Amino acid sequence: MNQGKFITFEGGDGSGKSTQLGLTVAWLEAQGKDVFQTFEPGDTPLGGEIRRLLLSGEFMPVPACELLLFLADRAQHVEQVIKPALAAGKWVVCDRYTDSTLAYQLAGRKLEDDAELRAMLAWAEQGLKPDVTLWLDLSVADAAVRMAERVAEGEPSNRLDDEKKSFHEAVYQAFQSIQQENTQRVCRINAKQNMDVIQQDIQKVLKDL
Amino acid sequence: MNQGKFITFEGGDGSGKSTQLGLTVAWLEAQGKDVFQTFEPGDTPLGGEIRRLLLSGEFMPVPACELLLFLADRAQHVEQVIKPALAAGKWVVCDRYTDSTLAYQLAGRKLEDDAELRAMLAWAEQGLKPDVTLWLDLSVADAAVRMAERVAEGEPSNRLDDEKKSFHEAVYQAFQSIQQENTQRVCRINAKQNMDVIQQDIQKVLKDL
Repeated sequence: MNQGKFITFEGGDGSGKSTQLGLTVAWLEAQGKDVFQTFEPGDTPLGGEIRRLLLSGEFMPVPACELLLFLADRAQHVEQVIKPALAAGKWVVCDRYTDSTLAYQLAGRKLEDDAELRAMLAWAEQGLKPDVTLWLDLSVADAAVRMAERVAEGEPSNRLDDEKKSFHEAVYQAFQSIQQENTQRVCRINAKQNMDVIQQDIQKVLKDL
Repeated sequence: MNQGKFITFEGGDGSGKSTQLGLTVAWLEAQGKDVFQTFEPGDTPLGGEIRRLLLSGEFMPVPACELLLFLADRAQHVEQVIKPALAAGKWVVCDRYTDSTLAYQLAGRKLEDDAELRAMLAWAEQGLKPDVTLWLDLSVADAAVRMAERVAEGEPSNRLDDEKKSFHEAVYQAFQSIQQENTQRVCRINAKQNMDVIQQDIQKVLKDL
């Protein structure tokens, strides 16, 4: 059976995640892989609506509601998009997945990270874990500089980008813990390096896959 | 402390639930109670959007996504609407709550009703259980007759109303089980009786509260 690979990109805002994801997709395609690029939240018709509820700033979901909306988006995405693509033998490259939920909705919002919540997160995944996760590690201070540059260039921010520093610190620490708890799956990429070096590091990881 | 009461109405479509809820609210107000009438899903600004995603028929959420959207709506509703109303001493009368999720999303959609899913449902409730639940018990066959009358009168149906008979049978059996498992909280009301008799039965239950 020609089962594809599931690769996720994780990291804080300003870590260069989206740029590196794009470069990675182009490189995989150049290697002859059948690649499917996707993201969370919002890459189904229903998910696009959920994304708006979460990020537009028009609504203020309480932390429990916010978590459940991210999980609803994921359940739909996994079942309707990711699993079919993997079954068709594609390499699925996804911008954010459950690790982001752990970092932003649990650590960032200070929801109690207990066995019950972990079970909910696993349930929403419908049994699908990434084969490899690339964590673009950039300190909160360095990320803040990049985010400020983006805003100066006129790029819009979303409701989660606009959270205060303590929130982004909690998110960062959560990504560190996730990496330490999942050293086999989660590869730390030093995102303070220049763009080409970062991409080489990513390609090294994926060559082993 | 002047803590209010939380009363939920449950039952299949066509059971007369909404009519009886309205009569009950009027009667409680006539008794001098400060009553707050609400419903699920959709009685917050964010919840109204979630309701549209769930029921308009524009989207087809997979069962896991559907369940998580109902829970997201509930978390927002409990925290922003129901708990504040109860804290202000109001009698909150709510059209549908967790029992409907058990009946429609678990039994109706055949999601496995295990400890994990029960824990998710409890988590979304944020610790809030009804003081009393009135279950308007009407057989699927009798309910189907009433629903057909409504449609003939031009009333629109929603995506869940339109499910097939086996779905509504599963929902009905789930309500029966819920009542048997929670005889203290859930009062069965024979909804085949005439409207005035049903309302008298409801008032008898509430007088004991």
